Amino acid sequence: MNLHRRSQRWAGIGVGLIVSAAGAALAAAPKPPPTAPTMAAVIADSVAADWRPLDPEQTLYLQLEGGRVILELAPQFAPAHVKNIKTLVRQRYFDGLKILRVQDNYVVQWGDPEAGNRDQARALGAAQPRLVPEFSIGYDAQSPFTRLPGTDGYAPVAGFAAGFAVGRDPASKQTWLAHCYGALGVGRDDAEDSGNGAELYVVIGHAPRHLDRNIAVVGRVVQGIEWLSALPRGSASMGFYAEPEQRIALHSIRLAADLPAAERVDLDILRTDTKTWNAWVESRRNRQESWFKRAAGFADLCNIPVPVRAHSAR
Amino acid sequence: MNLHRRSQRWAGIGVGLIVSAAGAALAAAPKPPPTAPTMAAVIADSVAADWRPLDPEQTLYLQLEGGRVILELAPQFAPAHVKNIKTLVRQRYFDGLKILRVQDNYVVQWGDPEAGNRDQARALGAAQPRLVPEFSIGYDAQSPFTRLPGTDGYAPVAGFAAGFAVGRDPASKQTWLAHCYGALGVGRDDAEDSGNGAELYVVIGHAPRHLDRNIAVVGRVVQGIEWLSALPRGSASMGFYAEPEQRIALHSIRLAADLPAAERVDLDILRTDTKTWNAWVESRRNRQESWFKRAAGFADLCNIPVPVRAHSAR
Repeated sequence: MNLHRRSQRWAGIGVGLIVSAAGAALAAAPKPPPTAPTMAAVIADSVAADWRPLDPEQTLYLQLEGGRVILELAPQFAPAHVKNIKTLVRQRYFDGLKILRVQDNYVVQWGDPEAGNRDQARALGAAQPRLVPEFSIGYDAQSPFTRLPGTDGYAPVAGFAAGFAVGRDPASKQTWLAHCYGALGVGRDDAEDSGNGAELYVVIGHAPRHLDRNIAVVGRVVQGIEWLSALPRGSASMGFYAEPEQRIALHSIRLAADLPAAERVDLDILRTDTKTWNAWVESRRNRQESWFKRAAGFADLCNIPVPVRAHSAR
Repeated sequence: MNLHRRSQRWAGIGVGLIVSAAGAALAAAPKPPPTAPTMAAVIADSVAADWRPLDPEQTLYLQLEGGRVILELAPQFAPAHVKNIKTLVRQRYFDGLKILRVQDNYVVQWGDPEAGNRDQARALGAAQPRLVPEFSIGYDAQSPFTRLPGTDGYAPVAGFAAGFAVGRDPASKQTWLAHCYGALGVGRDDAEDSGNGAELYVVIGHAPRHLDRNIAVVGRVVQGIEWLSALPRGSASMGFYAEPEQRIALHSIRLAADLPAAERVDLDILRTDTKTWNAWVESRRNRQESWFKRAAGFADLCNIPVPVRAHSAR
């Protein structure tokens, strides 16, 4: 094997959530056949209208020592929870708190280490201590939705809405965000209304879709998840760090809209309601790259990443 | 919230691949109702015959600076590849090689950094440089198999065989190991017969099942995957490390059978052909713990971990 061959060894299999602005990595992919474009070709052929800018009012920057994690909030799916989280963020509630738990193939979770200590716990201020559950929410004929072809074991209907992987139940007219890799959720106790957004988690493993409709999902990571997913795993039960000094400092969480423009990272997200999106899904369902000897004819809901790129790539 | 409540916040959701020998974490779970045991109860109620010892002849120890990763080989699914890998291991082929690639939500991959350099590449010795593809293999009525209830989008039939998650195609009578979290696979170039086991990968993200039947899967991680999954991600294309000095040293790979008994870790794996296994699957499909407000009625093939415990737990 020569290096050239090794460098092609996985050509076409990898997909970064972040598309190179220069498109250099993509340009190396083989030419697509005309009727079935590859993933790389779908992105290369996309036009500006296929992308939407990430809204600074719905974007969180989580700053760790290692780097910045960028998250998109989904107020349309959990309005009260998102509002409460934004209240906490604007009070700088999270600054100086800790990542308390990193469970392999499951979640990274952060919050107040002293949350259980009435005298030491950080005050929630104007935020609500309990919230009505928003584990699912109603939808109607006007609600955005692009159905994903094929079966889904967890939801009667699955697809994408406004850039998020979602389930739907036509019988109850309810929809919900799916627990895919990178999903941002609100920890809670046994009581359904015990979550308030002060303790949050991000999925860093195989999609734990059994959590769907059991907990409020409020968004997803769009950039920098590696600053969470590569953290040392906790050795105590459920991946909690056994010793306080193992906890990871959370420097700050800010709403992008609250930062000067120069401190923001402007990102575009591929829209999920376009012909380009449909082509993207198809390029995942049946991989066209020469490396693949057999096309799956299927991609599960959490195996279709929603592409993100620098706004400057337009 | 008090600490007690936080410590219960995720009770019942987490599942370690490794079951505590002492059972302490499990004992804290709520009592199951008699007709539907929880995951914890299924394990607690298991008997010795529900477990099988990990076979030292099919067990690899991958030693990194951080710790030891234990992998179970599956010769029944890829006999030529497993034989070649064992030949390489016994030649100490892997000792001193490097982890070359860590792609977030995808794979960790290791091999010879000089594989492309004819003068510097490590010799394969008695191992074959190319192998007939073993992307799937025939089965018959005698082959072990426990079908998983519910649908699977990637395989006509899905289930478990000899401790591994597998797909089956009754039309062609072929079966194959599924690319679940922790799966061990054999890197290859574009040519189907270009894999030989000298370059291996482990899945560290959401199951990339589109790789099924495109590449030889030869086993899975049964302990210590966190030494791979928490490694720093590579910043070059497809997660390769950009600089040679970023690569992670692979101290050694040994077959457990080749080590003195004192240096082995004796593990048991839950059998996948018992009533206990069926109860385990059901405890994943419909979570009984009080935290859960809604049971999924489903668990996908890669969301059912095969429990592992210390042999001393018997």
